[in-house]
Amino acid sequence: MPNIEIVLVGPLYEGNVGSTARVMKNFGLSHLVLINSCPLGDYAFACASHARDVLEQADLCTLEEVYNRSTLTIATTGELNKSVCRSLRMPYYTPTEVRELIKDVEGRVSILFGRENWGLNNEEVAQCDVVCTIPSSPDYPILNLSHAVCVICYELSGLPRGTYTLATHQEIDPLYSHLDSFLDKIDHPDFKRENTMILLRRILGRTKLTIREVSTLHGLLRRAEWHIDKKK
Amino acid sequence: MPNIEIVLVGPLYEGNVGSTARVMKNFGLSHLVLINSCPLGDYAFACASHARDVLEQADLCTLEEVYNRSTLTIATTGELNKSVCRSLRMPYYTPTEVRELIKDVEGRVSILFGRENWGLNNEEVAQCDVVCTIPSSPDYPILNLSHAVCVICYELSGLPRGTYTLATHQEIDPLYSHLDSFLDKIDHPDFKRENTMILLRRILGRTKLTIREVSTLHGLLRRAEWHIDKKK
Repeated sequence: MPNIEIVLVGPLYEGNVGSTARVMKNFGLSHLVLINSCPLGDYAFACASHARDVLEQADLCTLEEVYNRSTLTIATTGELNKSVCRSLRMPYYTPTEVRELIKDVEGRVSILFGRENWGLNNEEVAQCDVVCTIPSSPDYPILNLSHAVCVICYELSGLPRGTYTLATHQEIDPLYSHLDSFLDKIDHPDFKRENTMILLRRILGRTKLTIREVSTLHGLLRRAEWHIDKKK
Repeated sequence: MPNIEIVLVGPLYEGNVGSTARVMKNFGLSHLVLINSCPLGDYAFACASHARDVLEQADLCTLEEVYNRSTLTIATTGELNKSVCRSLRMPYYTPTEVRELIKDVEGRVSILFGRENWGLNNEEVAQCDVVCTIPSSPDYPILNLSHAVCVICYELSGLPRGTYTLATHQEIDPLYSHLDSFLDKIDHPDFKRENTMILLRRILGRTKLTIREVSTLHGLLRRAEWHIDKKK
């Protein structure tokens, strides 16, 4: 992954700057750049909460410096221009597309966010390599600044997304054998057997069992078997 | 898409409730449910901004009512338990996986978010059908409440993600012919021609041109041709 920095251009409210620092750290990013920022006081640090370090280490510099040292600059904009006739803000990428775009980039990628009231101006957008727009509802397309940063950080964090160890077929197949022999024990009729086993396989198949869950189900069956055997 | 509702369980800070309403509306969701909420005053409405309607129409009810009327209840939790030995919060789904999971669900899907200070308790999580965890940095895994809602709404909004009309091959091929004849005009050597055309095709191919951009490039070539012809 490239070195990603979040650049706030002319933020007006210190709360948003603090919240931006927090959500960056939540997603494992730490390089915050502030250009013409409002003063940061106690409220900014309260909003940053445990991301005080991100705020303290924020880089105060100019847009020129950001452009000069970055491999790729990305302008975020909420102002959609769906006509393909204006090239300034078109074509735009979604955050998901930006993730694909930058995944092989080496070097520094700067993502610019504009002022709360009117975003980035045309001159600022024009200098960027890529335009990114977060898909939003036409009823209310303007996101709070730190929410926009949140979506971008979430998409670009590169954090692992949901891996847990599922039981393999090798681990699940004995459960099906166990269920089959359990059906014997409860005198489940032979002529229904095949369909019932398919139904059980469909249910368990789509739940994607963990090894722990397979083992618990074995345990429940054994316990039931023990009670049935005792009665005989 | 199912009917998605965002359920805040015991929110403590009115600002977060207001920000939640705003980000829901940003992503086209409108059904907010509040259970044991803090009182909502001016600050909540200031944070909701143009999503005042979402806040005003929020449904005040009990967890029991939510469970009874929903087809699927999803607990969000930041408290990861990576061991597969505790089934209460495992296996968990990421927001992306939840999107896949609910896309064919008809009926009401309720997504529960816990209190700012300690999330959902075990009893609340136990009653839910699915557990969802937003991937976050181990250095600071606790997201602000409205940021957590933001990520979920972003993933589940079902808003179109970045479609703009690219030029088709039929529209781009004449540009390559044009470039080829332009190379003639500037006496580009034949022995280099094939490689140069491939290089141009690689550059233009990976930029994914819009129709408008193709047409502008034709225009630039024509203008250059005109100046070259004039000199002859």
